[in-house]
Formats: sequence, C-alpha cells, structure tokens
Amino acid sequence: MNPELGFEEFQTGALVAETLNQLEVEYQTGVGKTGIVARLGNGNGPKIGIRADMDALPILEANDVPYKSTVPGKMHACGHDAHTTMLLGAAMLLKDKEFDGEIRLLFQPSEERSDENNISGAPAMISDGAVEELDAVIALHVLGMFDTGMINISDGFILANTDTIEAKIIGKGGHGAAPHMAIDPIFVAAPVISAIHGIVSRRVDPNKPAVITIGRISGGTVSNVIPGEVEFSITLRSFDDDVRELLIQETINAFEIAKNMGADCEVDVQRGYPATYNDPEVASWIRETAIDLVGEENVISRGPSMGGEDFGYMSRASKGAMFNVGVRVPGGPDRFLHHPEFDLDEDALPIGAAVLAETAMRFIEGKFK
Amino acid sequence: MNPELGFEEFQTGALVAETLNQLEVEYQTGVGKTGIVARLGNGNGPKIGIRADMDALPILEANDVPYKSTVPGKMHACGHDAHTTMLLGAAMLLKDKEFDGEIRLLFQPSEERSDENNISGAPAMISDGAVEELDAVIALHVLGMFDTGMINISDGFILANTDTIEAKIIGKGGHGAAPHMAIDPIFVAAPVISAIHGIVSRRVDPNKPAVITIGRISGGTVSNVIPGEVEFSITLRSFDDDVRELLIQETINAFEIAKNMGADCEVDVQRGYPATYNDPEVASWIRETAIDLVGEENVISRGPSMGGEDFGYMSRASKGAMFNVGVRVPGGPDRFLHHPEFDLDEDALPIGAAVLAETAMRFIEGKFK
Amino acid sequence: MNPELGFEEFQTGALVAETLNQLEVEYQTGVGKTGIVARLGNGNGPKIGIRADMDALPILEANDVPYKSTVPGKMHACGHDAHTTMLLGAAMLLKDKEFDGEIRLLFQPSEERSDENNISGAPAMISDGAVEELDAVIALHVLGMFDTGMINISDGFILANTDTIEAKIIGKGGHGAAPHMAIDPIFVAAPVISAIHGIVSRRVDPNKPAVITIGRISGGTVSNVIPGEVEFSITLRSFDDDVRELLIQETINAFEIAKNMGADCEVDVQRGYPATYNDPEVASWIRETAIDLVGEENVISRGPSMGGEDFGYMSRASKGAMFNVGVRVPGGPDRFLHHPEFDLDEDALPIGAAVLAETAMRFIEGKFK
Amino acid sequence: MNPELGFEEFQTGALVAETLNQLEVEYQTGVGKTGIVARLGNGNGPKIGIRADMDALPILEANDVPYKSTVPGKMHACGHDAHTTMLLGAAMLLKDKEFDGEIRLLFQPSEERSDENNISGAPAMISDGAVEELDAVIALHVLGMFDTGMINISDGFILANTDTIEAKIIGKGGHGAAPHMAIDPIFVAAPVISAIHGIVSRRVDPNKPAVITIGRISGGTVSNVIPGEVEFSITLRSFDDDVRELLIQETINAFEIAKNMGADCEVDVQRGYPATYNDPEVASWIRETAIDLVGEENVISRGPSMGGEDFGYMSRASKGAMFNVGVRVPGGPDRFLHHPEFDLDEDALPIGAAVLAETAMRFIEGKFK
Repeated sequence: MNPELGFEEFQTGALVAETLNQLEVEYQTGVGKTGIVARLGNGNGPKIGIRADMDALPILEANDVPYKSTVPGKMHACGHDAHTTMLLGAAMLLKDKEFDGEIRLLFQPSEERSDENNISGAPAMISDGAVEELDAVIALHVLGMFDTGMINISDGFILANTDTIEAKIIGKGGHGAAPHMAIDPIFVAAPVISAIHGIVSRRVDPNKPAVITIGRISGGTVSNVIPGEVEFSITLRSFDDDVRELLIQETINAFEIAKNMGADCEVDVQRGYPATYNDPEVASWIRETAIDLVGEENVISRGPSMGGEDFGYMSRASKGAMFNVGVRVPGGPDRFLHHPEFDLDEDALPIGAAVLAETAMRFIEGKFK
Repeated sequence: MNPELGFEEFQTGALVAETLNQLEVEYQTGVGKTGIVARLGNGNGPKIGIRADMDALPILEANDVPYKSTVPGKMHACGHDAHTTMLLGAAMLLKDKEFDGEIRLLFQPSEERSDENNISGAPAMISDGAVEELDAVIALHVLGMFDTGMINISDGFILANTDTIEAKIIGKGGHGAAPHMAIDPIFVAAPVISAIHGIVSRRVDPNKPAVITIGRISGGTVSNVIPGEVEFSITLRSFDDDVRELLIQETINAFEIAKNMGADCEVDVQRGYPATYNDPEVASWIRETAIDLVGEENVISRGPSMGGEDFGYMSRASKGAMFNVGVRVPGGPDRFLHHPEFDLDEDALPIGAAVLAETAMRFIEGKFK
Repeated sequence: MNPELGFEEFQTGALVAETLNQLEVEYQTGVGKTGIVARLGNGNGPKIGIRADMDALPILEANDVPYKSTVPGKMHACGHDAHTTMLLGAAMLLKDKEFDGEIRLLFQPSEERSDENNISGAPAMISDGAVEELDAVIALHVLGMFDTGMINISDGFILANTDTIEAKIIGKGGHGAAPHMAIDPIFVAAPVISAIHGIVSRRVDPNKPAVITIGRISGGTVSNVIPGEVEFSITLRSFDDDVRELLIQETINAFEIAKNMGADCEVDVQRGYPATYNDPEVASWIRETAIDLVGEENVISRGPSMGGEDFGYMSRASKGAMFNVGVRVPGGPDRFLHHPEFDLDEDALPIGAAVLAETAMRFIEGKFK
Repeated sequence: MNPELGFEEFQTGALVAETLNQLEVEYQTGVGKTGIVARLGNGNGPKIGIRADMDALPILEANDVPYKSTVPGKMHACGHDAHTTMLLGAAMLLKDKEFDGEIRLLFQPSEERSDENNISGAPAMISDGAVEELDAVIALHVLGMFDTGMINISDGFILANTDTIEAKIIGKGGHGAAPHMAIDPIFVAAPVISAIHGIVSRRVDPNKPAVITIGRISGGTVSNVIPGEVEFSITLRSFDDDVRELLIQETINAFEIAKNMGADCEVDVQRGYPATYNDPEVASWIRETAIDLVGEENVISRGPSMGGEDFGYMSRASKGAMFNVGVRVPGGPDRFLHHPEFDLDEDALPIGAAVLAETAMRFIEGKFK
C-alpha cells in the first residue's frame, strides 16, 4: 500500500529493517544506496545469497481492493512487495538455524529504474560488495500466468539483454506540394524500418533468439507539411553477448541508410540489463527442492522469455538462478506484470519463502550432489 | 487588422458593403453564406466576373507592425485582405463607367475552410448562382516571392487538385519482447510507405505532374510496447482528373497491403479543391493587359505549382484565369504564404486593382482578339 | 531489305552515294565514320541542315512481306531506311533549286549504337564538322501510332536524356539455412529498390518529368543457396540537365545503402544521349509548313516522350527540331518501333520528304517571320 | 566410385545385397523402390532399426583421388556411400549375435530426391512397412566440420522442416520510359521481399528457430524494358509444425501484396522433409554408447541446424535419433557437404559402424535405463 520508486525505498527499507530487528537478524543498510543486506550463519563455510527487489512502478493502480496503493501514480505492479515479503518469510524460516556458512539476504532497491549513471539496484549493490564471496545467488519473480502452487525453473538464459535505442531520421522540412525542396524523413523511414526488421531474420543465427521492436515512430503534424524529423524508440533483446552487439551495431547501421538518401540520423544507444543466465547446477537445486515442496506435477520449465531483469547482473557476478512463483488464484484471470490491474494471490507467499529458504539451507548443508 | 475565419467574415463583409455603398455600387449579400456580389454595367452584353477572397487563417501573427492582427490566433497570412482591397479598388476604377454588359464583383468567403459538407466559399457562391451567365472569371493572388510591380500569368493548369487522406494501419498491440503475440503496425508501415512513394514514380505518366506526401506518421509511445495503430496524414496533388483518381485509388490500395501482413487499415479520403486551369484565351487577356500596365519585362510565366486554391471550382464553372501580383518590397525578404511573418508591400494594391479592372473593361469593350 | 548495324552502313551508304550521283548532288563520305554529307545551294546565305539516320537494329524480322530483311537477325525496325529514303526524296525535290545559302543533307550513321568510346553517329558527325555554321538543323522520325498523313511537332523537350546504370549488390554467398554466415544481397535489394523508386517521387521537381526504371534484376539460381550478388540494369530518363545529374547521383547513393547492410555495391554509369530540345522557332517553321502541306487538322502536338534519340546532340550543336511523320496505314494496326513486326506505310514517304524540303527551302528564302 | 542418383541405386543395391549374402544376412529388396531391408535376431522382443541412405548427388566431382567418381556429373558429395558402408560394417559386427528381438537394417534410397509424387526414400520405405513395429530407429550422418573420432548427438529438433516456394510476381511488360503503361514487377518485388523477411523477425516466436531465404530472384533482360514477371525461389526452414505452417502462409500472403500494387502473383508451395526430432531417450542411448566407445571428451552436443533430412519422416514414424560422425582428417580442412571437393577420412568408418551396432545391441539387451 506504500509503493516507492527505485532508490526511494525509504519506508519500505524501514519496514524491512524493523522486521529484521524483530527477528533478531543483523543487517546493514545503505548497501547500493537504499538496499539492505542481512547475514545468517557463522560465515565459516559455503555462502549463498537470496535476492528480493523492493521498488514499485510509476503506474496509477486501477484495482479496487482494501490493500490498494495509497500513493496516486505509484503501484507495486511488478510484485516486488511480494518478493520482499517472501524474503522476510525466508528470514523467519531460517533465523534460528545455526550453521557453518552464510545465507545472505539481499533486499535490493530499484530493479525498475536506473540512476543518472545508468546504474540500477543490482549493480549498485554489487559495487558495494553485496555479492562478494557468494558461491551462488538465487531469486524469484512472481508470475500471474501460473496458478498459485506452481514453480517455473529453467536452465540457461531465461531473460534477455534489454537495450534501448532512441533515434531520429533528420530530413529537411518543407511544403508537402514541393517535395524536391525538402528531404522527406518519412520516406526515408521505410527502408530503415525494413532494414531493421531484417537484422533478426538475416543477420542473427536462427538458433539464437533475438528481438528488435520499434515501439514508437513519430514525425509530422499535418498532411501537407513535410516534417524535419521522424523519431523512433526501439527495444533490443538477445541472450548472447555477440548477438547483443550485432543488434546494436546493425540498428545503428540501418539508420545510417538515411545518409544515402539525403537525410541524416542521430542514434542514442542506452544499454540496459544483461541477460539472466540460470546456472544449470543452481537451477537443479531449486528444481529438486521445489519438487519436494510442491510436487513434481507443479514444477515446470517454460524456457526463456525475451523480458529483462537486473538480476542478470547478479547472475554474472556469481553463479545464480531465478525461478517463478505462480500467483494466479486458481481459476482466476491472468495477471499481467506492469498492468494497472496487477494483483496476486497471497497464498503464494509462504510457498515462495519456503523454496528460497529450503534451497539455501540444503545448499549450506551440502545436500545437493 | 480584423481577420475572420472562413464563413465568419461578418465585419469584413460589413466593411465591403459599406465601401460599396460609398461607391454607389449595388450589391447582394448572403451569396454563398457570407459572400457578396456586386454588379456593374447594364447587363446587356458580355459578362465577366472578378473574384477576391476575404477570409483569414487560424495563425498567431508574429509580425510587429502597426497594422498587425488584433485578434490573437487569427491572421491574414494568405493576403486575402489585400485581394479584397484590390477588388474594391477595381470597383472604384470601374464604378463610373457605363457599358453594355456586366462586370460582376465576387467577394468570396472561406477560401481556406470547408464546412461540414466539405463546401468552401467558391462552390458555395457557385451554387447560389454567383457565376451564372459569366463568359469568364478572373482572380489574383498575391505572392511574396515576386517583387512589387511584377505580374505572373501562365496558361493551363497552374494549381493542383488537392486531396487529403487520413489513414490508419491497425495491428494488435503487445509487449515489444513478444512480437509474435502482436501484429506490429510499424513494421507494416514500411512496405506501405514504399508502395505509396512508388505511385508517382511508377504509375503516373511522367509528363503529368503529381505529388503524394505523407506529412504525418504517428504510432506508439515507448520502446518496449508494440502499439495497436499507426496513423498517417497524406496530401495528394495532381492536375488531371484521371491522375487524381489514380493517386487516390492507389493510395487506398497501398494501405490494403496491411491486410496481407496480418493487420488491417482504415482510409478516409477527403476530396479537396480541383486543380485551377487557366484558360489560355483568358490568360492571354490578362497578359496583354499586364504588359501594357507594368511593362513586358515585369510580366512572367512561371508555370504550374502543386499548391491548391478553391478558385479551381470557379475556373471549372466558367472560363477563367488567375494571376499573381508580386508583393515583395524590392530588395526585401521573401514572404511565404501561411507563415506567421507574412506581410506585403501595399504599393502592389493599385497594380492588382488596375490589372483586374482594365482586363475586365477591355473584355467588355471587345478589345481582345 | 539490306539492313546494316551502326557504323557498318557500307551498302546503305553506297546506295545513298549512287542516288546522289544520279541526282548530280555533290557529297562527302566518311563524315562520322560511315556518314555522308551533301550540300545544295551556293553557300552564301542562311544555312540549314536536314538529318536522316541510316542504321538498322539487331532484331530478327517477324514480318512476312516481299521487302522483308534478307539478313537474319538484322532489321530496319526503327524505320531509319524510310528516313534515309525521305532525305533522298528531299534531295530530289531540292536539287534543281538555285539559291543563296546552303541546305546540308546529313546522312547519319549509327543512331542506335555507340562505339567503344561511347560515341554514336550524331556526335561522330558533329566532331567531323557536319553541323558547323548551320543556322538550324531539322529531322524527322516515323511513328506508327499516327496515321499516314499526320505530322506531330511540339516545342521544347520532346525526347529525354537517356542514361544507363549497370549495378551489383555484392553480398556473401552461403547456405540458405544459415543466413547469418552469409550476407544476403537479395534482402539488401529491397530497400535499394524502394529508395530508387522514391527518387523521382521525392527528389525531383514534380513539374520536371523523370523516369528511373529497373529493367532487370538477377541473382541466385536455387532456393536454398544465398547468392553472392544481385545484378541490376537501369535506365534513367529526364529532360533537364540538373535532373539528369540528380537521377544518376541519387541512384548511386541508393546502391550505397548496401554498405550499411553489410554488403557492397558496384555501380557503372553509362551516359547516353542528351535530351532532344525542339527550338520553338524552328518547330514553328515545321508546323507552319506542315499545316500548308497536310492541312491544319493533320498537324498535332503531342508533347514530350521519355524516349531517347541521338539527334539530341545535333539539337544542342545547332538550333534544331524533330517532327514525327505518321506511317500507320489508316485503319491498320499500331506499329511499334523496335518490334519484330514493325512496318510502315510507304505512302508516308513523299509527305516526309516534302515537309523536310519545303521547310528548308522556306527558311532559305526567308519566308518565316 | 559408382554414384547413382535417388531411386536409381541399382549397382549400389546389388553391392549391398552381395555383401549381405557374404555375411549370410537375410534381406528383402524392392522396399521403397530401390531400398533393401535386412533383419537380424529372432524377432521375439525389442526391435530397433538402423538406417543408412545410399544415393548420390548430381555434382561433378572436383577431387583428384584414386577413389574419385567414375561417373561424370554424379558424386557422393553427401557421404551416403560412407553411411551405407558403416551400416554394412554394423551388419558384420552383429551378424553372429543371437538374440531375442530384431535389429533391422534399412538401406534407404533417394534421400536427396523426391519422385513425381513428392515422395523421397524415407517415406517410400515407410509406406512399404519398413519401420513397422520398431521401438526405435537410429541413423548417422558424416560431418566434415568435426574431426574423425568425434560424435555429435543432441536432443530434440536437430534438423529443420524444409519447404520450398517457387513464386512469380506477374506485372505487365512495357517500355522502360513509359512505366505508367506497364505494371513493373521489379518495383513490386521490394515490399514483397521486405514483408517476407519480416515474417521470421515479427511473426515467429523468437524462441522458435525459423529461416526464410529467397535464394533466387530473376526478372527482365535489359535496362529499358519493364519485364512481365519476376521469379523467386525460396526455402523455408523451421522445427515446429505451427511455425512451418505460419512461414508458408505468411509467405503466400506477402506475395498477395502484388495484388494491391496492380500486379498479380503465382505461388507454388512444395512441401519438403519434416524436421528431424531426436527423441531424448534414444539420443541418451547413443550418447552413453558413444562415450564408452570414443571417450567423453569426444562426444559433443552442438544443438540444432536448420538443414534438412528425410530421416525426419522416420523419426516421426518411430522414436528415433540421428547422430553425426566426424570425418575430418585431424588437422585437415573442413569438408562441406554437397561441395564438389567433399571427401572424408575413412578412419571414421569403423567408429560409425561400432556406435550403430553397439547402441542397437545394448538396446536389445535392455542395458539402457
């Protein structure tokens, strides 16, 4: 009910701290700006991290429920409040265990938002040392397309490199009846668009998933005036690093076509999160644990999506894996992330907490082959 | 200083009427809504009309001059106030002549604007009988790319058919990372744009001028969401009727390409003004008169432009011709029509009035071969 | 029946020479390689040239007529045999006249073909001085879309600059199942084609006729192999010099798009004949003469075509004009130039000869205003 | 040295039969036209098939080796002679075993070629009952990009659905200088090509591999004539059935764009081989056996290729899997299939034979979990 945007998780962090105090778990604040790190165990032995993100989205909630956002224009539409709750639940389950090793609880800020240096919560925590010495790091994300009680865990790349390009084709405005006195950027846009949409189909290994979407095109205001510019907003998704670079470079090249048609271009590449790679070994720990907790029939492996997550940074800094916890009320509607009517079934909270805690504990105890 | 938009020329009409009263010229109001028709001569013999338009544009004047528009957001940026003034000037020059025949003064409303039935001032006056029985009709338009003292008069088509198409490509919105779940209308836009820009180059007789300009394209708001639609605003220019129909039909066909790519389209054709055809005989009268009045070196023939004018309706209802009067202060800057800094050299006013009056009078007197 | 290709008009030239001998007209051979120049008059006064071309085409004649080509694969499919005949006819009509001035008969070789230095018959004759000192030069071309008895004569540009571009998009061949290992030149061809067909519609003044046609595209042999190259053959037509240069440069630029898509290109520009410009004064002489000879109702003015002619060189070296002589048997089928079934109505021969001779003679006699 | 094309494997079949006679293995000829089926074991128990293809390619061999093809224009450029040899080797290894069950040796004709009913060797044998009652079927293919001694075996789809489309855009021919009298099919080709290359990037799930390659485009002969048609040869590759149908249907739709541009189209879909799916269980048998025979370090899993194989029919008729046997002389050059210089290291023959025989025998003996 008190959603806060990235790097502004002041009340949320205070609630986390207060809860950890009640649980008598030690913690450190200010890790990655507004992040919190708590440590369990004596530190002498294997070390595993559990990460949950805490931030909300700038969306006006459209649900009419008692626990609706009280802050107009902000909403936990990506379920990070549930993630934080489940990590606190894992803390409850684990706090009285004594063991050789460390289970590190990573309450991460700002998964959705990057600061002025293009740094989001995960790299901010990493640069403050939050994942140092960890043998592995695990995380979860709620998903409203699966019923409560289901766990989805896959090997390999599960979420994509997510880059953004803002670009312009710059022509020369003029009267629509005298095209020869102008350079029409809308005309130039057509081959550029066709070239961009051939990058995935012609330049990328067909066995390496990739997506380029032009989500926005905008130029001109009226029928009889040739505008000076057309603007584009583009998202680029990939798994492999070499594909990532290819998509960026070839999109830049496609805009350079403008220069062969009398126009010019500006291309601004905004690198986003790296792909999240689920280490097969870590994923197998989660799968094995989940099968024991929710039953084999409820553990699925849906493979990759082209979505993005800043957990990709953590799964590069350490071995890692992320799984999904189903949060759809069985029989209820699908609940889409980032939608103003996103909601989740709270019955999923103890399930997520249990899978996190039990996977970490089994790892510490050396129970995985 | 008191600009009024199309079909709202109440004060302007009142000023015209008052001036005609002072000149003791009889007139009729309410012709074509806010138009005025005055008649000189005894009506027994040849009949010629002179048309001037009276309306202003919804543009905020950017000039800082004593005679600046006093109505914010309205401005005589197309010089129709000068046209009206010159027609009143012609009335002064002609009012005392006695002759067999008729010189009909057509003070036309709303050249710039069409009503809810797609009727602008010229067809409105025509349907009220304003050009009935005329042997010919002449008109002028000021032009700030020629110096004061110059007259531009050409034969044949001088201004274009001017049609507008508002269209949409309708896809299916979705997440930018899952293009297969959506139908991306921006992708579809590329072949549609290419097809449209091939109509003029591949389907139209190269000796028949034509232009299709997409002046606006707009779809989507952010990089990672595939929008549901892309909108287009298009102007189509031509001289010949068959080319006009071809442009319209092939543009519609080009949008139908969307249907072969999983999308849909909506195409709204808004037929505008017909091309203005200068009858060579009538044009020769104006040329001959102008040469006598301003000298052969100041009479030019610049040929066609792809601009539009609702005088096209009048030059279809009667034999007709329109000429340009230069209004650039010699040595001064070009003055573009429809520009917030449009202005004109008032020294051009008696010249335009004289060419109108003298051409009409010579026609009445049978002085042209 | 004895057609010879460009610069091989040996028998044809011998027949011309023999006929001129019979007519007792003096001539000079070897002007522009296989061309012949004959001169009438005493040379002291006005000078006018009449040009006829003599060469045939490498086409297998498909007509079954007694006067069919006797040389397989060669044919007078463009009517140059008729042109030569009509110029000989003019010689007959003029040979006994005595006058102050000169009528120069230009029997031109190789209108259809350029030598290894890209020189066709007209520039070859010009560089040998064939049009020096001429006040004007006239010529005719038969046309099977007009009935015998008709003369078509227009002012200004009547035939186009005719340039050719041979180009390649050079990719990298490979297996069709592994596009990422290749650079697919057929994919690259699409935006290049779209860019080329936008040059006329977007970059050229709509009142200046222009055509770019890609007449040939060819790449690859089977479905599952990506070819290394795609070839293009392109013709470019225009009237104005600046449009000509624009078409060439922008077509080159369009192929450069290949370089932005990982491919390369080669573009070979082959400049062809310049546009033929009919000087309005010379055209008026032909029109006036033709009206007297065939009647006003049979003299038309069809305006420009985008075809080409090397008479363009002559009409640049001197004032000039070319007219068309209808050669369709009235009621008969259209006869297309360069078609294996081209044929013509020989009744047209004396008409063409008479217009040529009479126009020249009236000019010499100072009968045109 | 005696290569024979598909369904013409008469000498090859005779050699197989003679060898089986020598080995005292019973067999049946004429299965699937020129195919041969041999059976080992008593037939009472588990049944497994081993398939090898026998046909050659219409390629002129460019190697200079003693065992070079003796038939000009025919060559074992895809290694099927080696496949047949290895299956005969497996027969040698297995012929003296007595067991409950059946090992069925499938000497298949015409993997490369389909008959007039679009039937290649695998479906021909299947319809003659060759894989009936089999629990599984295995096969191998040599590959010159891996060293001799290596085995490549992957799970799931390893080779693609392979369909072909031959299509035409049908315009209307005409003179290149008069595009408005023609319908230019090369102009129409551009948006069609762009639409086709957007199918994979915009319409297919990015996690489902797909390829559409236009391998051939051909239209027109000279620069100044607009051709009547442009032809296309296209290969379509996919794994999933729904993607396969999508590629075919959307390619057809893309050609329908021609109808919106004044042209027409003809599209001929030639369905080829279905994707080869390696059943994970059968693949695990091969992997386990290969690890024992060549060592874990020499067994790799390279995942899918977009190539095609008619073994896809067999792996649909029964559970099946195909593996690759490296045939590159270690340190030697890559040897590309279907290349006139294809060659292979014969040291690989006993390895392939052994993996085939041992996998089959272990299966019969129930040694796989």
